[in-house]
Amino acid sequence: MNYFRSNITAMTGYVPGEQPQGTKLVKLNTNENPYDCAPKVKAAIGHAVQAGLQKYPDPTATAFRQQAGELLGVDPDWILCGNGSDDILTIITRALVDSGDVIRYPNPSYVLYKTLAEIQGAECDVVEFQPDWSLGEAFTAPRERLKLAYLANPNSPSGTVISPDDVARIADQLPCPLLVDEAYADFSETNCLGLVAKNEKVMVSRSLSKSYALAGLRFGFLIAQPQLIEQFAKVKDSYNCDAMAIAGATAAIGDQQWFQQTRSSIIATRGRLEAELTRLGFECVPSQANFVWCNHPDHPAESLYQQLKEGGVLVRYMSYPNWNDGLRVTVGTDQQIDAFLTILTGLLA
Amino acid sequence: MNYFRSNITAMTGYVPGEQPQGTKLVKLNTNENPYDCAPKVKAAIGHAVQAGLQKYPDPTATAFRQQAGELLGVDPDWILCGNGSDDILTIITRALVDSGDVIRYPNPSYVLYKTLAEIQGAECDVVEFQPDWSLGEAFTAPRERLKLAYLANPNSPSGTVISPDDVARIADQLPCPLLVDEAYADFSETNCLGLVAKNEKVMVSRSLSKSYALAGLRFGFLIAQPQLIEQFAKVKDSYNCDAMAIAGATAAIGDQQWFQQTRSSIIATRGRLEAELTRLGFECVPSQANFVWCNHPDHPAESLYQQLKEGGVLVRYMSYPNWNDGLRVTVGTDQQIDAFLTILTGLLA
Repeated sequence: MNYFRSNITAMTGYVPGEQPQGTKLVKLNTNENPYDCAPKVKAAIGHAVQAGLQKYPDPTATAFRQQAGELLGVDPDWILCGNGSDDILTIITRALVDSGDVIRYPNPSYVLYKTLAEIQGAECDVVEFQPDWSLGEAFTAPRERLKLAYLANPNSPSGTVISPDDVARIADQLPCPLLVDEAYADFSETNCLGLVAKNEKVMVSRSLSKSYALAGLRFGFLIAQPQLIEQFAKVKDSYNCDAMAIAGATAAIGDQQWFQQTRSSIIATRGRLEAELTRLGFECVPSQANFVWCNHPDHPAESLYQQLKEGGVLVRYMSYPNWNDGLRVTVGTDQQIDAFLTILTGLLA
Repeated sequence: MNYFRSNITAMTGYVPGEQPQGTKLVKLNTNENPYDCAPKVKAAIGHAVQAGLQKYPDPTATAFRQQAGELLGVDPDWILCGNGSDDILTIITRALVDSGDVIRYPNPSYVLYKTLAEIQGAECDVVEFQPDWSLGEAFTAPRERLKLAYLANPNSPSGTVISPDDVARIADQLPCPLLVDEAYADFSETNCLGLVAKNEKVMVSRSLSKSYALAGLRFGFLIAQPQLIEQFAKVKDSYNCDAMAIAGATAAIGDQQWFQQTRSSIIATRGRLEAELTRLGFECVPSQANFVWCNHPDHPAESLYQQLKEGGVLVRYMSYPNWNDGLRVTVGTDQQIDAFLTILTGLLA
């Protein structure tokens, strides 16, 4: 058992949010979309399956890249598809970061960044967010062997956004490439897609898990300049996206009407959730994502999480070093949020 | 553009077999199964899609591991599922091999092994097969920083098998873990599954791409002792298998009647293909896989490949250092093989 790299045996491993199978819990813990995906997605997957799955899929998911290129106004050569945006993060990390190198990211943010660094045998340079959820000079400071910075934008768990202008400045000052993880950007008023063409060091990743209700399908993609895409393509598994996922993802981004409708519903419900939480005495960070990060001055977050779960509602309890713990509540349907608020009101009484 | 690890910019990247989309070519180049998958697979995927894809899939594919555990007589804790067996190979390499370490594998064999080593920044220790496709002492010799050996068994492109007894001896003598890549083992008379319980260093990977006609679905798995599985699980992406693939793969291994029927057909056609190639003057290696490796003393393989393609039949031309080049012909349906043989006979006349 001493076969393993020492960084692997030493690490604890990423623990994803609870995924109870086949329960009746109202699930507001992993930022899934509460709505069913577009009917066109199901039809496209059905056609792919009926055509047969015995052949290997298109290694570069050309159909998706063409459709996404039209939608986003970029050339398909600027797009790399992944088996979820976690696959994209993995590919970038493996391509840029050697063991002993340094990766920078903010705290509190997506916990997977630490795991990716640990797997690679890299050192983590963790920069604390300022109290107003901006990033200070420590995030752009030079450092030896610094090879990559991750920035979730909107950030999780806060749901806050750093403006494209500020991200542009950060990227200019950083001595290494910057991965802007836009898993939640479809729920935000701004995004950093426009920065990619202006600065080779800016890379943007997207996910279909949240805004297209396709967490179970696993599809994400990267937008970066083509000379970078070409190198990243060497690192991905040849057939990292399956035939059903390619068909479904292509149909998903092709149905912008479905997308706009559900997006509007989620943003409206988010406003209602924030207002109700505030009314109940919670401190809420205004969110640009499909979740709300909150804390109650009189009720510890961990026991609220536990009591909510006993009441049939699963939210995410999160605790970060050097930061208050709290609850991250996914924006569900209005009915789900009503159920959550009813139980919560009872708990606070 | 000096952001990348030097091993990444220096490598050429794995080039998979041609995957022409939407052509009428008879495709005998990437060892796909010529038959449609079991109807139960399509039904299971259909159910998963209808149930909705908005939730994350089961991170450990429990349903598949239980079904596979019953079929293979191992505990589900001995199984790790992957997004194709390429994902399994990637996970193992990242967990065991640091940059500067050494990976051993035979030549000629699966070309991806070199790519995996290059991505990791590892050195390749390539051991030539003996003329009878056995492996000599060089394959088990001690070497500093040797961390992993790959062995495709049956091997590609040869279709030859090293017996479980010989693999057991190799594993005993090797100073590092041995990944027995059994992507083609379902077409062979023997396999090495029984060695896993006897020697912690033996790991066996399987694929559903070939024998279950599911190359487009991306599903493979690893059988290893649970203390190893536990470490490998830290390295995989949390949700590496999507909900449709888990449902389809579980249904696939649950339908052993479909499996045995198509397996028998492919093995029967393989025998006919070998006999006809031999009759046409080819030197054929007797195959235990779903392809045949062959060479004609009077007709260069590369021009035959090109002429066959012009005639509408795609086979794989392969050229390896220190070894003769040749054609690897996938066992298709009887009709596909007839079409191939008809054109080939014309080319040789």
